[in-house]
Amino acid sequence: MGLERVLRAKSVAVIGASRDDRKRGFQAIKTLQTEGYEGGIYPVNPREKRILGLRCYPSILDIQDTVDLALITTPADTIPGIIEACGKKGVAGAVIIAGGFKELGRRGKTMEEKIVRAARRYGVRIIGPNTSGMINVHENLNLVGIRDVPKGDIALLTQSGNVALHLITEARLKSQKGFSYYVGVGNEADIKFHEYLEFFTEDPSTKAILMYVEGLSEGRKFLQQACITTATKPIILLKSGRSAAGSASAGSHTGALAGISEVAATAFRRAGIITIENPDELFPAAESLSSLPPISNKRVAILADGGGHATIASDLLTDHGVSIPRLRRRTQERLREILPPNAAVRNPVDVAGGADSDPALFADCAKILLEDDRVGGLLIVGLFGGYGIRFAESLKFLEEDAAHRMGKLMRKVQKPIILHSLYNFSQTHSLELLRYYNIPVYDSLDVACKCIAVLCEYGHKVARPNRKASFVFHWGARAKKQGREIIEGAQKEGRRVLLEHEGKALLELHGAPVSLDRVAQTAEEAAQVAQELGGEVVLKIVSPDILHKTDAGGVRLHLKTAQDVRKAFQEIVQNAKAFNPEADIKGCLVSRMAGEGVEVIIGTKVDEQFGPVIMFGIGGILVEVVKDVCFYVLPISRTAPMQMLREIKSYPILNGVRGRPPVDKQAICSLLLTVSEIIEAYPEIQEMDLNPVVAHEDGLTIVDARILLKKKGRKGRKAKTTS
Amino acid sequence: MGLERVLRAKSVAVIGASRDDRKRGFQAIKTLQTEGYEGGIYPVNPREKRILGLRCYPSILDIQDTVDLALITTPADTIPGIIEACGKKGVAGAVIIAGGFKELGRRGKTMEEKIVRAARRYGVRIIGPNTSGMINVHENLNLVGIRDVPKGDIALLTQSGNVALHLITEARLKSQKGFSYYVGVGNEADIKFHEYLEFFTEDPSTKAILMYVEGLSEGRKFLQQACITTATKPIILLKSGRSAAGSASAGSHTGALAGISEVAATAFRRAGIITIENPDELFPAAESLSSLPPISNKRVAILADGGGHATIASDLLTDHGVSIPRLRRRTQERLREILPPNAAVRNPVDVAGGADSDPALFADCAKILLEDDRVGGLLIVGLFGGYGIRFAESLKFLEEDAAHRMGKLMRKVQKPIILHSLYNFSQTHSLELLRYYNIPVYDSLDVACKCIAVLCEYGHKVARPNRKASFVFHWGARAKKQGREIIEGAQKEGRRVLLEHEGKALLELHGAPVSLDRVAQTAEEAAQVAQELGGEVVLKIVSPDILHKTDAGGVRLHLKTAQDVRKAFQEIVQNAKAFNPEADIKGCLVSRMAGEGVEVIIGTKVDEQFGPVIMFGIGGILVEVVKDVCFYVLPISRTAPMQMLREIKSYPILNGVRGRPPVDKQAICSLLLTVSEIIEAYPEIQEMDLNPVVAHEDGLTIVDARILLKKKGRKGRKAKTTS
Repeated sequence: MGLERVLRAKSVAVIGASRDDRKRGFQAIKTLQTEGYEGGIYPVNPREKRILGLRCYPSILDIQDTVDLALITTPADTIPGIIEACGKKGVAGAVIIAGGFKELGRRGKTMEEKIVRAARRYGVRIIGPNTSGMINVHENLNLVGIRDVPKGDIALLTQSGNVALHLITEARLKSQKGFSYYVGVGNEADIKFHEYLEFFTEDPSTKAILMYVEGLSEGRKFLQQACITTATKPIILLKSGRSAAGSASAGSHTGALAGISEVAATAFRRAGIITIENPDELFPAAESLSSLPPISNKRVAILADGGGHATIASDLLTDHGVSIPRLRRRTQERLREILPPNAAVRNPVDVAGGADSDPALFADCAKILLEDDRVGGLLIVGLFGGYGIRFAESLKFLEEDAAHRMGKLMRKVQKPIILHSLYNFSQTHSLELLRYYNIPVYDSLDVACKCIAVLCEYGHKVARPNRKASFVFHWGARAKKQGREIIEGAQKEGRRVLLEHEGKALLELHGAPVSLDRVAQTAEEAAQVAQELGGEVVLKIVSPDILHKTDAGGVRLHLKTAQDVRKAFQEIVQNAKAFNPEADIKGCLVSRMAGEGVEVIIGTKVDEQFGPVIMFGIGGILVEVVKDVCFYVLPISRTAPMQMLREIKSYPILNGVRGRPPVDKQAICSLLLTVSEIIEAYPEIQEMDLNPVVAHEDGLTIVDARILLKKKGRKGRKAKTTS
Repeated sequence: MGLERVLRAKSVAVIGASRDDRKRGFQAIKTLQTEGYEGGIYPVNPREKRILGLRCYPSILDIQDTVDLALITTPADTIPGIIEACGKKGVAGAVIIAGGFKELGRRGKTMEEKIVRAARRYGVRIIGPNTSGMINVHENLNLVGIRDVPKGDIALLTQSGNVALHLITEARLKSQKGFSYYVGVGNEADIKFHEYLEFFTEDPSTKAILMYVEGLSEGRKFLQQACITTATKPIILLKSGRSAAGSASAGSHTGALAGISEVAATAFRRAGIITIENPDELFPAAESLSSLPPISNKRVAILADGGGHATIASDLLTDHGVSIPRLRRRTQERLREILPPNAAVRNPVDVAGGADSDPALFADCAKILLEDDRVGGLLIVGLFGGYGIRFAESLKFLEEDAAHRMGKLMRKVQKPIILHSLYNFSQTHSLELLRYYNIPVYDSLDVACKCIAVLCEYGHKVARPNRKASFVFHWGARAKKQGREIIEGAQKEGRRVLLEHEGKALLELHGAPVSLDRVAQTAEEAAQVAQELGGEVVLKIVSPDILHKTDAGGVRLHLKTAQDVRKAFQEIVQNAKAFNPEADIKGCLVSRMAGEGVEVIIGTKVDEQFGPVIMFGIGGILVEVVKDVCFYVLPISRTAPMQMLREIKSYPILNGVRGRPPVDKQAICSLLLTVSEIIEAYPEIQEMDLNPVVAHEDGLTIVDARILLKKKGRKGRKAKTTS
């Protein structure tokens, strides 16, 4: 069910309405009246007749008119009954302020589930519980109580009331922008992040979505929706609880699962989300993205008066991956004509005091710079807005002229301008004018740089729409009958681990190159298999009771002759029996020794927030010591494997270093897709670990494969099997 | 000569004094008068009689009284003559405002050198040229022209006038702290950064030194002085020009050498300098370090009202390496007694609305928290200072009481408190009170976190004073006679490269383990040497004309028998002759094959700012692809090598991974010290490259050694030779 009637409610019942001005049930009504909400307001309290001039109802069921939304301000234990009544009344949604649910542990969680069940029965949608409330800013439907929320086109989704208060205060004091909605999502008991996102994607009053997230309960659905949303509207997100300490703090705060940052960071980026770590940058990034055209070529010109700010800005932009291109020769010539001889005209452009007697020079330079086709956007840093203060008061009129010209220029050329000014504190008129034209002004150089950087990041994303589509999950792959038999066979034996040859068989079924492995039950058979395989072979024990084969003396490498093989077989079986006399020994796996190549590792696991994810890294030290790995949420698209390879720092190794030939990257990519398909097709799999895989110049060898199944009874996706 | 008379001048001549109020020569005098400078002011201009009520002199030589300092406001080409006159007058220092010197290229540089020579002749010290000027704030000696510089105890050293203007404006608007000095160092033609630093280290009015640096002309001396300074006073430094774009911008700005960030970052850290990258954090960090006791145990408590800010703060502090320890049980119990049941008391502490009716609760919590011996400092985040605004006006008095109590608490327990407040904009009285007690208040959560983090960083530094001493350079090592002969021998032959056996001989002379290498001139001799060495050997061509031995077919590995060796010798010589028929072939180097171990790389080079530096990394891919290396400025102390080993990410490899034994770290450390000694003793060496060095479980093998000498005629340190 859509959120239309909930977030655009035409009538509100306040349950727990009060005449006591210290109570939320009083303040809520007062706020709605003061802010000028035009819908119906229905106080509900059996002990009162009238509150703030409005008739008060004993129960929500006593209201004759339609009620779209109920604001519930009563304590946790009263809620189940109230939701029941709301349901009977046909209310579309309820905002539950009270805490005392999931965030306090098991008992609270049970109560929360009870409420959700009641709500689902009647089709009542719930915001919260444990929320600061909700505001539809343009319709003055303010159920939070924060006053003077500036109107604008940014939708705010938050898991902290204080952080929201912070952002709203910041907007009011420092910006001309404002909000379309405020939603405190609270515990996400019913309505989840992705549903709000879906609503805002369609909402005409919203141009950008600003999120403060401590934990996502439906990470995967969130990513899918985010992919769709970011194609048309930017999402700016601060995910806190990244660190162990932060995540402990978030846990006690909202009861949300705090995220594994590595998986989340990549997933958010792939979904086109702008992630922010410094809270100072959060509102400004949303402000810039909601007001300005994005930059598709990642190229920015810097315009300064004096070198210091320009140099720092160059460093910060470079850190953000923005390029500061040398300007075209014609542009440099045009700048030379109007600037003093000691000015720098390559980029950064330093007017070098040339604006001291005429700050309108900034508008001339801005025009020349934005007419250069190499330049995607303009960052002006330093002193603009303060020439009237520093030198002569009359200069402020010239600054105002420049502001008008730059504002109109930006509209015309559709390239963004962002301004950093030391004089932002002084609130001069020229700076106010710039804001009128939607040119953001910041006193922080760091924030100004970040803002132009996010315009580049988002512009880069929307300029390459293919990427996004690849992130939408198609759970299309089907299990194969034989594959299902392998898994069921293990399950029947009470095993959660597939034996190496079973795992390899499963991989082979889905197209992975493992055909040269065979299980031999006798020494003689082993020798025969070895002969058929040719070259050096390796023998490994096959037993469900021996998982760490090397520890049990169950591995022999570099076997050349039939005699070697027979002897190794006997020794291995002997060792295995000594290691575990009860072990069920099924024989030895005979495989060809892997040739020369680069060892890589492919693994999968089930992330608590995002579900199945796949990991890729280059084997040995680079994974174990340097932790140079990359995680992608599964399943992956056909273009994803090559991106994964490129994302690790040690990628050049795959192209051949120190005189070695490049390895078969196509084969690695195919294997990544096969693994994705298997995880997709067999939801019983908990973890897969292909370690090592040796990538050769041509093809690859899966040296070992370990597949762990889920515990029986754990809920998972339903599998589809091809017959 | 000290800077006493320059920076504390009792009299100032303004050369280029003017009656035109648009001229610097007018403004400078006006500023000195307005600000209340009590020393003598002597305008100098041959065309004027009186300026601003003061007698004007035709030349500085016409002034009868002593003149300590000359402010020169005239253009570049007039300067040499004026310096000459200043010298004759016995002036101690001159501030040269004009640009047009080193920063404009060769001609400017020549003129700059001319000025410096004149100044040195007479003992006149120069600030600048190309500087915004100098201010001794407490003595109202303002030669910059920025008004209302707040008085305080931070000395500001800057290479950008705008950045300085920014910091001063910020201090005035947002802080109760201020400055003791302002020095625009300009081109550092005469007085260098380290000399100012030395002055401020002794200056009683200065408690912290705030620096904005684009490039250092004497990096090494700067580090030496910084080491001494940071033992007693913190240095807070923003080094811009880190990126290629930033460094290009800096180059055109001050003509300074922009830094190689990798070397600089480590060197600054070792010298105990607090480096800042986000300019928003620069003044606040200096403010905190100049006002608050540092934290020696890196442990901080977070106190919040509501979870969002606490969670973000936990993340940011963790990023900065600050720990957020679980509080002692007794502390948690004491908090429980005064906080509501839903409060969090482990750390972060969340009062969870408990302060809504009594914000003085913050003072109670602060006391309990700072009495916990696990807690080194306190960060309060969120809403303090705004309870009187949010809830009831009367609460502001309780907030003020809390502010008094926290202020006095901090004085008593000598542990710092830093406050983040959403209501900082509102300038409430309680926040003003906190500032009065030297508790900094920030509206940026990021800045507040950074400030408590730098207190930890500096506290950690001063708590371990040994480290600092190790950074002071002793150029004590002496060359050996035989070593000098090796180098001179190569130079006589017109070579800049030492042959491998020469390099190894030099290393051996200084104690490195290379004794198993010998040059053989005939195949027979090679076979004989091989037999003496025993085991497998390697043969490598020895020829000054063949540097890339492998390319010339000049290397043969794994030679076992005398016959193998003879054959290899002949082939190598044949290949070498084919490769370069003119080559002067001196024979083959016979070495034992290196055994099992980990390949490491040790190299040295001469950094443009910091002189000789040494690099350490683990060989192969980790250096070449992952760039996991560490640079230290040479020479290094006895404790430095182990620190270098630990600084690379792949350090665990040296302790043995994947079943391998640990390598002989002591041997690596000895070799690093030997290399340091050699670079120290032979200033002729430009670069040394020991690549690879194989570190074994016991000892190591230097497989290849390449030593490159400086070009003849390049100036370097004077060598000392032991006879």
